[in-house]
Amino acid sequence: MSKKLTSRTEDYSKWYNELVVKADLAENSAVRGCMVIKPYGYAIWEKMQAELDRMFKETGHQNAYFPLFVPKSLFEAEEKNAEGFAKECAIVTHYRLQADPDKPGKLRVDPEAKLEEELIVRPTSEAIIWNTYRNWIQSYRDLPILINQWANVVRWEMRTRLFLRTAEFLWQEGHTAHETKAEAMAEAKLMNNVYATFAENFMAMPVIQGVKTESERFAGAEETFCIEALMQDGKALQAGTSHFLGQNFAKAFDVKFANKEGKQDYVWATSWGVSTRLMGALIMTHSDDFGLVLPPSLAPNQVVIVPIYKNEEDFEAISEIANKIASELKVKGISVKYDSRDTQRPGAKFAQHELQGVPLRIAIGPKDLENGTVEIARRDILTKEIVSLDNLTATVENLLIEMQKGLFDKALTFRDDHITEVNSFEEFKSVIENKGGFISAHWDGTKETEDKIKELTKATIRCIPLEINQEEGVCVFTGKPSKHRVLFAKAY
Amino acid sequence: MSKKLTSRTEDYSKWYNELVVKADLAENSAVRGCMVIKPYGYAIWEKMQAELDRMFKETGHQNAYFPLFVPKSLFEAEEKNAEGFAKECAIVTHYRLQADPDKPGKLRVDPEAKLEEELIVRPTSEAIIWNTYRNWIQSYRDLPILINQWANVVRWEMRTRLFLRTAEFLWQEGHTAHETKAEAMAEAKLMNNVYATFAENFMAMPVIQGVKTESERFAGAEETFCIEALMQDGKALQAGTSHFLGQNFAKAFDVKFANKEGKQDYVWATSWGVSTRLMGALIMTHSDDFGLVLPPSLAPNQVVIVPIYKNEEDFEAISEIANKIASELKVKGISVKYDSRDTQRPGAKFAQHELQGVPLRIAIGPKDLENGTVEIARRDILTKEIVSLDNLTATVENLLIEMQKGLFDKALTFRDDHITEVNSFEEFKSVIENKGGFISAHWDGTKETEDKIKELTKATIRCIPLEINQEEGVCVFTGKPSKHRVLFAKAY
Ligand SMILES: [Zn+2]
Ligand SMILES: [Zn+2]
Repeated sequence: MSKKLTSRTEDYSKWYNELVVKADLAENSAVRGCMVIKPYGYAIWEKMQAELDRMFKETGHQNAYFPLFVPKSLFEAEEKNAEGFAKECAIVTHYRLQADPDKPGKLRVDPEAKLEEELIVRPTSEAIIWNTYRNWIQSYRDLPILINQWANVVRWEMRTRLFLRTAEFLWQEGHTAHETKAEAMAEAKLMNNVYATFAENFMAMPVIQGVKTESERFAGAEETFCIEALMQDGKALQAGTSHFLGQNFAKAFDVKFANKEGKQDYVWATSWGVSTRLMGALIMTHSDDFGLVLPPSLAPNQVVIVPIYKNEEDFEAISEIANKIASELKVKGISVKYDSRDTQRPGAKFAQHELQGVPLRIAIGPKDLENGTVEIARRDILTKEIVSLDNLTATVENLLIEMQKGLFDKALTFRDDHITEVNSFEEFKSVIENKGGFISAHWDGTKETEDKIKELTKATIRCIPLEINQEEGVCVFTGKPSKHRVLFAKAY
Repeated sequence: MSKKLTSRTEDYSKWYNELVVKADLAENSAVRGCMVIKPYGYAIWEKMQAELDRMFKETGHQNAYFPLFVPKSLFEAEEKNAEGFAKECAIVTHYRLQADPDKPGKLRVDPEAKLEEELIVRPTSEAIIWNTYRNWIQSYRDLPILINQWANVVRWEMRTRLFLRTAEFLWQEGHTAHETKAEAMAEAKLMNNVYATFAENFMAMPVIQGVKTESERFAGAEETFCIEALMQDGKALQAGTSHFLGQNFAKAFDVKFANKEGKQDYVWATSWGVSTRLMGALIMTHSDDFGLVLPPSLAPNQVVIVPIYKNEEDFEAISEIANKIASELKVKGISVKYDSRDTQRPGAKFAQHELQGVPLRIAIGPKDLENGTVEIARRDILTKEIVSLDNLTATVENLLIEMQKGLFDKALTFRDDHITEVNSFEEFKSVIENKGGFISAHWDGTKETEDKIKELTKATIRCIPLEINQEEGVCVFTGKPSKHRVLFAKAY
């Protein structure tokens, strides 16, 4: 298998698909729309999980686990939510297989083993969780409930792409219950802010925080907060959402509590989630035509050391130095791998580590042995330099910090260069066609206009940014009055 | 809700069920046989996961993720495995709901949305994984593959009990691929040993390592290694299994490789798993009539500090000391919670922490303020003593080590007292009826005898221990010759 990727300018979508497979991140499986997350891809996801989990716990949340299945009668209880997911859910109808009398050695569904009530494989867990919370909540003393779940969910999407849209995906879903509207609203905003902080500080991916318009809201939510990122091809990607659910689920599942005044009231709710989709966002934010580019905080191996030698004697001398470097780096919490495989040549190793986005590659050859040096190659800007063994640990530490910041700054510059203010629909269409990115434009606030613009340009309102300038204007499409701009884009 | 538990002697099974619910570990859900793992229970499971994950990685394994669903044609490929699980699997047959024309506001399965091929919700993942490995393995250079997956699985059991036997449960499943039979066999033994080490050192639960007889083997395995523990009611519990799968799955999924001599050969396999069943084993090994008893390594909070005060002034003075103690303990890696809730009296807090198995409780009252002391209560042996604030951190550290060891020793003594050698079937029946525990007896090696003994006594062969004494003898049931004893017990 050739390791050379299609270039981004040639075919961005093909570049992405090839990169995911060739960098050993994920692949399609025998199950339509479901992916296999390979060890290298999963190691990156584990780093995301660990950091998010830490942030959730730091903000007072606990993990728990709720059933994979939702009985149909619970699934349909919150009407809008049910409507939103009904068309794409996997349904368990039977609980037993039997020998197929017509085909020796084959099995068939046992018609006698039909469930009385069908079970939906959770596309999201509000229904099963709020049905459970009913028994946990009697009084304001039982509130707030601040729970998160790491789980797999299934949405039977017709068109799937590795990480970006898969029938089964991994995610976390927070589900919280509160005494007051204000408290629930604050929680929804807090968690959206946790996502933004994670995306920017950890993934080096700049995001815009905003709220969704009614037509882009989560089914069953009263307000959906989101973080929106911009990919290198000028398309936006919704990287996380946090929903203020009002009392909708409490009413659907009859979850009331005695408040401090002793009166019964419905509980206020939020839910919030990010998924393995973040892997797609990560790839499309930083990577290049040579393969994956990883911010150091997410790299399974931040440093790889490759020995270059012609004889066993050199190999031993180099290995001694390599192991010393490795253990010094490990003391500083830097993950490092000494790639001493004798089944691969240095060139092949370089290519693999480049393709897999290892931030720093240290090569040590016979000349370095003489001079007390090593060669350091940066994956982000593809530079190489010879540096002294003295202070190598500090050099590496500083480079990793510089790279983490550099990747964010580069992505931020790109993103900011691709937010275009437009004041006419002609301009709108031209920017969408030719430049891409976010379009900041006035909108009259109606669903009709939103739909019409989408129909004509494929651009949707990604969000109404939280940081907004009040500015009188007229809708770019209808000319009706508008009080502020919103952000449009084509999106993943 | 009263917190008082049914005692173990009164009704062991009821004691267990009540403890699980009242200690906030888990509860039944609206889905038949599926449980909700509550935050406190999940926090213990997370500790198990973290330690096991560390041990797997230390032995060279990586995590990955494979699909939840197995297409029926793959499921049935390895015949014995399929046969073993066919009678208890959840089957997805449809992928869409629609409005029910007969019942306004309700949904029904859309008959148009029937899958061409049914999908089995994984009861175990050998089939989907070996179908994937086929594409990953061409040559001996691609081996070994050492992968683990943390996942949920579903087995449609008819009689379920929280943690011990649930329709959906959480587990890890290792799936490895090897060049040689010897290497695969060594891996299967290694992982069984990892499980034994984990059970004994971390869960303070003594186990016997052994192999299963043919009738108790995993469906599709050629040899099943296991760790068997003994519960306080004298019943055995299989706490983990590790399977040598031979070339069965490689043959079923046509997974061949070019060996070092360039010849094609089928790949050798292992799989191994432990599940949330370990939570049940943990509870039934250490807990008492007052509730959960946790070994310190698995306690979400190893220490809880409870203030006892009559006025705000005392509360502030106590809080100052409590916070100082807490931060000193945290520096030493000890998890500690200052329970300063003003909604509960000290007595209620004591009862809760006792029920939830917090290893050490530190109470601080006005008298302690005067004397520079605190009261420490041990959950394991229910003792209390007044100790000086001087060296409190060292005192706590030593107590936790002592408790971890003490719980293991106590369980070991109980277990060893309940391994009874018997030499006649009369004795066998009497021990099973009156004493319980493991019975060490000669067996003639046939399935017929095994089945007959099970029918007459409900005892099964738990394992043929790895550490075995060669000893000539005669089968306790048939009088036929036997070369060593095996272990029988009634089991969970
Ligand atoms: Zn551009
Ligand atoms: Zn006894």
